[in-house]
Order: sequence, then C-alpha cells, then structure tokens
Amino acid sequence: MGQVTPAPRSAAPHARPSTGTRLDPWIDSYADRTHGMRASEIRALFAVASRPEVVSLAGGMPNLAGLPLDSLAESAQRLIATRGATALQYGSGQGDQTLREQILEVMRLEGIDAHPDDVVVTTGSQQALDLVTRLFINPGDVIVAEAPSYVGALGVFRAYQAEVVHVPLDEHGLVPEALDEALTRLAAEGRTVKLIYTVPNFHNPAGVTLSLERRPRVLEIAQRHGVLLVEDNPYGLLGFSGEPLPAMRSLDDEGVIYLGSFSKTFAPGYRVGWAVAPHAVREKLVLASESAILCPSNASQLAISTYLAEHDWKGQIKAFREMYRERRDAMVSALSEHIPEASWTVPDGGFYTWVRLPDGLDAQAMLPRAITALVAYVSGTAFYADGQGADHMRLSFCYPTPERIREGVRRLSTVVDGERELVEIFGTAATREGRIVESPSPDLA
Amino acid sequence: MGQVTPAPRSAAPHARPSTGTRLDPWIDSYADRTHGMRASEIRALFAVASRPEVVSLAGGMPNLAGLPLDSLAESAQRLIATRGATALQYGSGQGDQTLREQILEVMRLEGIDAHPDDVVVTTGSQQALDLVTRLFINPGDVIVAEAPSYVGALGVFRAYQAEVVHVPLDEHGLVPEALDEALTRLAAEGRTVKLIYTVPNFHNPAGVTLSLERRPRVLEIAQRHGVLLVEDNPYGLLGFSGEPLPAMRSLDDEGVIYLGSFSKTFAPGYRVGWAVAPHAVREKLVLASESAILCPSNASQLAISTYLAEHDWKGQIKAFREMYRERRDAMVSALSEHIPEASWTVPDGGFYTWVRLPDGLDAQAMLPRAITALVAYVSGTAFYADGQGADHMRLSFCYPTPERIREGVRRLSTVVDGERELVEIFGTAATREGRIVESPSPDLA
Repeated sequence: MGQVTPAPRSAAPHARPSTGTRLDPWIDSYADRTHGMRASEIRALFAVASRPEVVSLAGGMPNLAGLPLDSLAESAQRLIATRGATALQYGSGQGDQTLREQILEVMRLEGIDAHPDDVVVTTGSQQALDLVTRLFINPGDVIVAEAPSYVGALGVFRAYQAEVVHVPLDEHGLVPEALDEALTRLAAEGRTVKLIYTVPNFHNPAGVTLSLERRPRVLEIAQRHGVLLVEDNPYGLLGFSGEPLPAMRSLDDEGVIYLGSFSKTFAPGYRVGWAVAPHAVREKLVLASESAILCPSNASQLAISTYLAEHDWKGQIKAFREMYRERRDAMVSALSEHIPEASWTVPDGGFYTWVRLPDGLDAQAMLPRAITALVAYVSGTAFYADGQGADHMRLSFCYPTPERIREGVRRLSTVVDGERELVEIFGTAATREGRIVESPSPDLA
Repeated sequence: MGQVTPAPRSAAPHARPSTGTRLDPWIDSYADRTHGMRASEIRALFAVASRPEVVSLAGGMPNLAGLPLDSLAESAQRLIATRGATALQYGSGQGDQTLREQILEVMRLEGIDAHPDDVVVTTGSQQALDLVTRLFINPGDVIVAEAPSYVGALGVFRAYQAEVVHVPLDEHGLVPEALDEALTRLAAEGRTVKLIYTVPNFHNPAGVTLSLERRPRVLEIAQRHGVLLVEDNPYGLLGFSGEPLPAMRSLDDEGVIYLGSFSKTFAPGYRVGWAVAPHAVREKLVLASESAILCPSNASQLAISTYLAEHDWKGQIKAFREMYRERRDAMVSALSEHIPEASWTVPDGGFYTWVRLPDGLDAQAMLPRAITALVAYVSGTAFYADGQGADHMRLSFCYPTPERIREGVRRLSTVVDGERELVEIFGTAATREGRIVESPSPDLA
C-alpha cells in the first residue's frame, strides 16, 4: 500500500516517541466516511457549560429525581442474586423474549399491535437508527427529514454518507404537501430516496407534534413514492394533555420502522431502546446488530424487564409528565416575560421548545456570549444538514428546576438585548466563521 | 426513486394484510453492504444444539459458575442506592473516567502503559471492532487476517465490504514471513491494505499464541508496510501457565489499536469492552461511537467499576484459569482417547482447541450428523472468508463440565468413525452444497 506513508517511524518499536504529538500518522488511512466526522467546536463550550454555575438549557438529559432508587436498588440486588447466571451471560442478538413482550405492552399505549418477533432490542434507540441507516444507505442516497431534525440522526446519516433533504414542518408537524413535492422532485431528478425520517411526537428540537389528520396522509405519500418511513418516537408517552396519538406504525406495519426507547420514560443509563420493523427488515436488523455488538446487554435488559414487572411504570410516566409540564410552563412564561421579541413553540410534551430569535441575531455566534453570561443552549444550526438554523435556538426544559429555567431565560434575555443593541447600532451582531457541524452526543440527546 | 418498486400496496394503510408474508417489499432498497448479510444455516442447528441433551462444544460462552453472585448482588444494590442518579443517566461518549483508569490497571498486567485518555469504552469489544472497521474501511479495502480468524471479526469486515486476505499461522501464531510476503504482494498488486487483524493470545479458533520472539517482528513488518495492527485480546489473562506475554500494544503505541474485554475475565452480560488507540484515532473512535450509540451504558460501566474496586478480580481470574485449564485437560485427553486419528492444538489458555479431521472428512457436512448424535461444534469453514476450513472444527471447552466434555468427544468419535467408514467404502463422506457464510453471534463468540 505504497500510497500510505505514515510519519517517519523507527523500525525498533521501543525507540519511537510515545505520546504527546497531536499529529495523526494514520490520516491517509481513514475511510471516506470518516472524513465527514468532526469534533464539534461546541464541545469545548459544553465543557464550560457543565459547570454548576451555568444554567444549561442545552442538554437533553432526563430528570431522574423522581425515580424510586431504593426500590430499584432492591430489584437490582434480587436480579443478580436470583438470575445472575442469565443477567451476566451473553443473550440473544434480537433481545430478551420477555422484555420484547413487555415492550409490546408499552407500545399498545400508542395503538401499536405487533408480535414479539417484530421487536429488536438495541443499545438505546440511537443504535437502532445506526443499524437502519446501515441496512439501507449507500453513499449518496437521500434521506428526507424534517427541517429541523434530531442532531443525533443527522450525525448517523452523515456517517453513512447519506444526503439529507429537509422538508419543512409547521405547528402541526411535517407538512404533507411539502413532503410530496420533495419526493416528486427528487424522483424527477433521478435521486434514490431510501428513507423518510420523522419524529412525530414532541419533536426534537421543534417541539411540535404531527397532527392526527396528517398521519395517514404522510403514510399515503410515503407508500405512493415507495419510501420506508422511520418513526423515531422517544417522547410519545410524555404528552402534557390528553391521550397519546396513534403511532404511525399503528396505521402501517409494512411501510414503517418504529424506534422506541426507555431513556426518557424510565432511564437512559441502561441504554435500552428498540426497533419494530417489517419481518424481512427485522431479520436483517438482527444480523446487523450481531455484527455491531453481538447482543444487547442482558444485565440492562433484565433490569428494565424487572422494572416493568415490579414497578408502577405507568404511574412513573405520569409523574414524569407532570414534572416536565411544570418545567415547560416555567420556560414559556419566562420567555414571555423576558424575551417577548422572540417567538417560540409551546410543546404539548417532550423536552424542548424551539425559539426564533429577533431578526439579525445569530444563535451560533451568540453562544459564547451566552455561556459567559452563565446560560447555555443549542444553536439551531445543529439541527440542519445544510447550514440553516442560525436564527433559532433549542431550549431544553427537561433537566433544570423551574427556578433555574426562569433564571436561565433571564440571563439569556440580557445576551439577546446586548445583541439587539449591536444590530441597531451596527446593523449586525456577533458573527462567526464557517459552519459548525455537530456530532451527536449525549449533551444533545 | 423510480427504480424502487415495493410489492403492490393499497393506498389505505389499514387495508393491507398485516403479517404472515415472508416476502420482502423492501428487497430493492437495501444498501450494497446489506446484500452480504445472511442468516447462518447453522443457526437452525444451534437452536437444536441448545437443547440440554446436546453437549455443546460449539459456543464461546464463559462459565460463570464461579462468580460470587450474592456479593455482586449486594454491590448492585449499593450502586443504585448510592449512585443511581449517575448509573441511570447518560454518560460520556468515551466512557466513565474511573473505569478507564481501572482498565489501565488491568492492561498493566500485559505490560501496557497508557493514559486514561487513550481508552474508549465500548459495548463489548465487538463494538470496538465495528467502530475501527467503520473508521478505516472503504469497500474493497484489504484487511489481512490470520487463517483462521475470529468469526465475529470476519462478519464485521464483510459488513463494511472489506476483502479479507488470510495469512497462515502455525503453533507459534501468525507467521511473520508469510505476513511480509502477503503485504509485499498486495502492494505490488496496487491493493490498499488498511488493517492487520490478529488475536495474539490463545487464538479463537486456533488455540495458538504468538510467540514472544515473533511479536516485535510482526510489528516491524506492519510498520515497514505502513499498516495499522488491530490486536484483539479477550483471552490474554486466561493463560494456563506462566505470566501473560507482553501485549503488542506494550511494544508500539502508535501502530496498534488494542481491543480488550471484560466478557471473559468477568462477565459478558454487561457488554463492556474497550479500545486503546493512537491519539488521533481515539478521537475519531469516540465520535463514531457517539454516532452509533451516543454513549456506553453507565449502569454497566459502574457495575464493572464497582466489581474491580470491591472484589478480588485478580483472584477471580486465577480461579477462571484453573477451571478452564481443567476443562482443556479433559478435552485434550478425551481427544487422545477417542479420536486419535485427528490432530489438534493444545492451547495454553483461552477457550478453544482447533481440530484437524482425518483426511476426507468435511466438518460442515458432518455437523447435522453430530447434532443427531447429541454433540455440537463449529465447522472450520466459519473462520475463513474464502471457503477454506472444512477439514477443521473448533471445539470449545469453556462452558461444559469436564465430564460433559469427555462425553461430547466420545459422541463425536462415533460420528467421525461413521464418516471414516463411508470414506473407506465410497471414497467420500457427507457432502454439502455451497458454502455457508457465518454471521457472528453470541453462540460463536
């Protein structure tokens, strides 16, 4: 392989300088897909943002304060003592049979009728997303996704060299006419569209929900164009009013891959999510998962299974909903009070509100000043594959207390006010160079 | 996407038949890489082989009977009760800092001197292998691997459309001269060789260990040809005599990616492994892992970390070594007694012996008869990318008791005797059609 010439190295292994250089002797060896991977510049800011004096409205970490730790601890003890030989051993690539049956119960709350064989347990639903993308995407294939979209999905799509084409959403979610137009245009251009990716409930980051009326229309469009729909639904049970809407999967079991997760309805630390897929796709998902990790953790799966069997998991979800609703209310009322010149979505569930900044402000450029003012958010640019979004920011209300949320928004208002003054005086506010492409990370989940 | 034409579907989502068909409406949508994925025909046999009356010499499941479950259960209880808010939450993409420091202690036993920043915690070392392959392999790139090689690695390499070129090993491991020749030839052919993949200690499936004398020679050859070496080392601490040999990584920290695992030295159920990589590669590994799973399980990582802190993990490894040595002895003496016309490696550690069948016998064709005789193994064909290996089988001695191992080999001898009779009478024994390509699975770990 003559073309690969690492930095000069001595033939004697011990003689080489051991550490300290940041140069990469393997720079010429990486795969094409790897060149698209970049560490986010925002990471450095997050390191600062995690200091306790900063109010972080950036992260997507669920608030676990309400979990009954003592009782979970006893369950954990009993699990290892009585079923340790199973919990500590390799398991099936598809996931634990009992857990897959319990997952059906969870999904029944959103109208899904499936068979345990249809379910593949994964290391968080992020892994399901990775595996689905792996199964379907050749470099250059198109994935149609909402504008904006979940940053972690965009990272996976980029890792497989997909091209993302954004379709607008409004307060009722993905716009069916715009989806139909985009698919028609892409077909006319001879593009290969493999997947439609959507977060129908309490969208990350936009906070909106696909209306009941639009759901069959979106499915009809996907079917008519022959494109699989990926329904990513981590927040569906975390609505603040009324019953959950029927999942897209409940309306179509051959054209939808459904992704679910226990990370927001219970706890992310076990990394247990799942996919429900049409039969033949499900078989390939299992093979892909075995190639990627052999099998999901039995210890984690049995811990979740025990939780579902022994605890009032529906009551816990209700408690989460009430906690997050209170925080949503704090966020929205603080925005009204402190930054009335912005506009924002009022989510009916989930973790996020999507804030449009006053004209002329750039969320990405403004972020360092916000962190200096001890408040953090995620710039809207993280949620687009094409550089849009600087006029928006995502504010999370999931983790901080209502008091901290109000204080965070107050701090943010001082930064916004300062930027607006600059715009009024100079016609422009903070500027930035180039575009920062986010990589997914737990901070952004 | 005119070329994708799913099976006819009604426009009304509810009208479609819901389940039962095994046809795949998405068959034309898969990525190129997916066409290489196949369910192993051996899977069906394994379903039979897992019946209790079958002695399985096939699987790679560690024997966990010696683990102190009551004490581990108490640790689990304390972990959730006192550190539940961390254990149940998202963690860092690179892995828990304390665990990474403890991993350094483990690796020090094999002479590795590294920094916690060099370590990336993964969902089993299988995920590390997946991520390394993802970072480096374009379709058609070459990976040089031992003949035979770990089936799970071959599955990953195929998933990324690598071409595997096998290099022979002998009783002292990978043959340096053959490696040098292969790399020289591939360079002359203009091929791009990205990785050398090796299991230096107690090889799976061959049972051999790369000699101390060969280790620097192999590294020198890799360096001279400018190829990264992937050292996969799940069994290194499970030697039956003497001290562990120095890891390849202990001799070269810029040219080696080291993969480690707790699956064999503690328990696979937590799915915790790790990679140690040169600095720039390590950074990309973290990005790739975040894209794949966001972060490894905190619950699993803290359970392992607690185990290392509170339990005599070195004593446990010593107990495992003694247990596996006794089983190796049972295997080898049973082979001498019952199948003296075969030949086999006598491993000085690990889980496997590699058995060469008498001339004319085909391990793959013979497997159904073996299972009928209530004994299972893995055909040697699973461990080659190119169809070789039917003259070998892998026998595992890790899981069954010594008595069961002896009984399994006795049953196997009846099958071998029957096949040999056929060869003597007809000049051939059982035959098979086509080549079965294995997909990795826990059965084969």
